[in-house]
Amino acid sequence: MEEVERDSRDSRDETPAILGKHRQEVERSLSKALSLHNPDLHTMLQYHLGLGDEHGNPTVSNQGKGLRSSLCMFACEAVGGLSETALSAAVSIELVHNFTLIHDDIQDGDMERHHRPTLWATWGTPKALQAGNVMRTLADLGIQQLSSHQVAPEVVAMCSKLLTSAYLETVEGQYLDLDFEGRTDISTSNYLDMISRKTGALIRCSMQLGALTGNSDAKTVQALTKCGRYLGAVFQIRDDYLGMWGDEEETGKAVGNDLRRKKNSLPLVYALEQAGTMEKEQLQSIYAKEQVEDSDLVSTLALLADLGTPEYLQGLAHDHAVHALEALDGIELVPGAKQEFQELVEFLLTRQR
Amino acid sequence: MEEVERDSRDSRDETPAILGKHRQEVERSLSKALSLHNPDLHTMLQYHLGLGDEHGNPTVSNQGKGLRSSLCMFACEAVGGLSETALSAAVSIELVHNFTLIHDDIQDGDMERHHRPTLWATWGTPKALQAGNVMRTLADLGIQQLSSHQVAPEVVAMCSKLLTSAYLETVEGQYLDLDFEGRTDISTSNYLDMISRKTGALIRCSMQLGALTGNSDAKTVQALTKCGRYLGAVFQIRDDYLGMWGDEEETGKAVGNDLRRKKNSLPLVYALEQAGTMEKEQLQSIYAKEQVEDSDLVSTLALLADLGTPEYLQGLAHDHAVHALEALDGIELVPGAKQEFQELVEFLLTRQR
Repeated sequence: MEEVERDSRDSRDETPAILGKHRQEVERSLSKALSLHNPDLHTMLQYHLGLGDEHGNPTVSNQGKGLRSSLCMFACEAVGGLSETALSAAVSIELVHNFTLIHDDIQDGDMERHHRPTLWATWGTPKALQAGNVMRTLADLGIQQLSSHQVAPEVVAMCSKLLTSAYLETVEGQYLDLDFEGRTDISTSNYLDMISRKTGALIRCSMQLGALTGNSDAKTVQALTKCGRYLGAVFQIRDDYLGMWGDEEETGKAVGNDLRRKKNSLPLVYALEQAGTMEKEQLQSIYAKEQVEDSDLVSTLALLADLGTPEYLQGLAHDHAVHALEALDGIELVPGAKQEFQELVEFLLTRQR
Repeated sequence: MEEVERDSRDSRDETPAILGKHRQEVERSLSKALSLHNPDLHTMLQYHLGLGDEHGNPTVSNQGKGLRSSLCMFACEAVGGLSETALSAAVSIELVHNFTLIHDDIQDGDMERHHRPTLWATWGTPKALQAGNVMRTLADLGIQQLSSHQVAPEVVAMCSKLLTSAYLETVEGQYLDLDFEGRTDISTSNYLDMISRKTGALIRCSMQLGALTGNSDAKTVQALTKCGRYLGAVFQIRDDYLGMWGDEEETGKAVGNDLRRKKNSLPLVYALEQAGTMEKEQLQSIYAKEQVEDSDLVSTLALLADLGTPEYLQGLAHDHAVHALEALDGIELVPGAKQEFQELVEFLLTRQR
């Protein structure tokens, strides 16, 4: 039954098996994790997770990809563990990730996410800020649930500490990102360091916690952690690519969206690093404008193309993908796991949304 | 030496011993807990804690009362433990408390705290929001440090869970508070329930963690927890009193400050509950105004006095103080502890700031 569902999902979305396999299980557990005395808070969290509407009525799931929870479940199974052992960790990671999204939307003033109004746009900043904090608290409480699945107390404590540290790295990365805003002197190496914290830390942690709860040896945990680190970079580099050259029908965002928003993403950072004096001035003058016009968009996209920016990004993502796969060399995983992982990597390299 | 310092502090401020005793130790540990890669984040957190200026230079401490950390240290010593055992818990509670203050200031749009610009007023909302999140993360990491002071792993896990749960209660209380804004149908019982979560949970937790790390038996932990619950109410009721009738020179806020801000605090909740139809209309019309005028202030303060509001608040605080002291009956504490606690209770009942 699960097999059939997975297949039908795959053929519909071309979603790799890793992302489809445990989706329903994770959603059920996410929904259960939102047990709160306050009905309004419950409604807000359910709404943000795409499991309910703004009045608290359940809706057909409208969630993101669930990459982090899927990776956690995958890593646990890949080392020979039972996926249900990792479930509390997977749910906690998804909650932490969603908490960061709620606060991100407030910080960035974003009014929409997944084609729906954001939490702060619907309930106002003070309530949305609190709802985010509660989401994070449920994650903290949730990870303690690992102990009810035969995970040893010291492993639970370690998982809790790793998740907290990964979050600290995330927030330090977000802070760096805020700091980079409007600056034109960021090197690609600065930028890659920033995203390895901002996006990478939690993705890496997903695989780490999966491997730990699956009870694998230190060498295997280390290999999967390293693999997760590279995978995080693949994910974010492609995200930056789509932010500039994504298809509007797929991403819901027009071509050059990050440019319109004057976002300091990898394409710009790279282009500024490569540009000659005149090209640099051209880029800086556009980013200094109050409003980016369509004509600016056309000329900037042409300049980025001249500098080989799209090829650079795809090449860089590809290199990280190779490193992610290489990290799994020399460790033993259950049959089929490396194949499934390769599918996921290919999906992340070429995804349109 | 410590004794001398304590005495000089006491005679200067009339600060009860519990609040003075471990202040320097806690401040040193707080300062150490702020170990962060990012220098800007470090500066912000140090600034908020009153340990540094906005450029990162150390300043003479300009902290709050440190009530929560002091209670934690006190409870540990009172049950016969060594106060340094509780230090990590005391610091974590103080960090969680300060995290809530940073986010509160954003939510309430408050520009000043302890006579200095707030974090968001100095660095902007996005950075302040992140700094708050980091403060909380350091608390999560800090509580794990208990294990390096011979606290058993299961007690560390329990302390971590209790602190997280207390924070969840705090935020549910804050959320209720936001929800009460502008409403005139809140009963005193609703209000007291709200403050028992918003302020009470963390104060209660301070004594609970102190007793736990001091390795006391279940009955003693329970008694100190109950005592902490009542003490939290004493603290907040007096806070609401000072928000309405505080001395400007002491509190830094003019008489009727909460009225000017149209804050739904206990004096108003009580008065609305007691008022006849005409008085109710008078109160409602003032709270419905865009701006509260001096003449409104005078008439409202007179109405509150007519309804016996100040006496009600002080009576209620006194009742809770009695319950707090009674909670300690029948348990054994080290000599002098009950006396010290009584001093603290008297201070909290009569404090001017």
